[in-house]
Amino acid sequence: MARVLVMYKTPRDAAAFDKHYLEKHVPLAKKIPGVRKFEMSKGAVGTPGGPSSYHLVAILHFDDMAAIQKAFASPEGQAAAADAQALATGGVDFFMFENNDA
Amino acid sequence: MARVLVMYKTPRDAAAFDKHYLEKHVPLAKKIPGVRKFEMSKGAVGTPGGPSSYHLVAILHFDDMAAIQKAFASPEGQAAAADAQALATGGVDFFMFENNDA
Repeated sequence: MARVLVMYKTPRDAAAFDKHYLEKHVPLAKKIPGVRKFEMSKGAVGTPGGPSSYHLVAILHFDDMAAIQKAFASPEGQAAAADAQALATGGVDFFMFENNDA
Repeated sequence: MARVLVMYKTPRDAAAFDKHYLEKHVPLAKKIPGVRKFEMSKGAVGTPGGPSSYHLVAILHFDDMAAIQKAFASPEGQAAAADAQALATGGVDFFMFENNDA
């Protein structure tokens, strides 16, 4: 198993972000080849000490790191990544890793 | 559904971190009440541009935010959180949120 975390910092206009994310970005991201599951945060992203600097976190599931590399090299992956950057008026952090159940 | 991301920055001694994490932290974290699933990264945590500043990412699954609050207020949650801080010689970021399948 492998995961991509897409962590969007608080955008300039949260309502515009949410509309763009749901109406345009989710459909684009679902077309990325090799995505087995696509989870997204709902509501605030918190920390033990209070609010975080993130507005939304997406967790994409892939079979392995090779599938992630292939996905982001594909036209659909490039389109979704470009749209993520356009969305992310506050910035966006991507992290990718193989994972296991502990 | 709700998730806790525990993101450990690169520690001072990666081998010591890994040994402590597997031998002591995972057993402690598995005792936290309400944890439905516990995933952890295996190998490097990367970004599209190369290595990240993170050494390990854990994703804990809970039923909802109330379960997370209850879990971290429990003695087992407090013990695991204290151990995470002791482990995290490079620092650790916690994020928590409700989530859905997109």
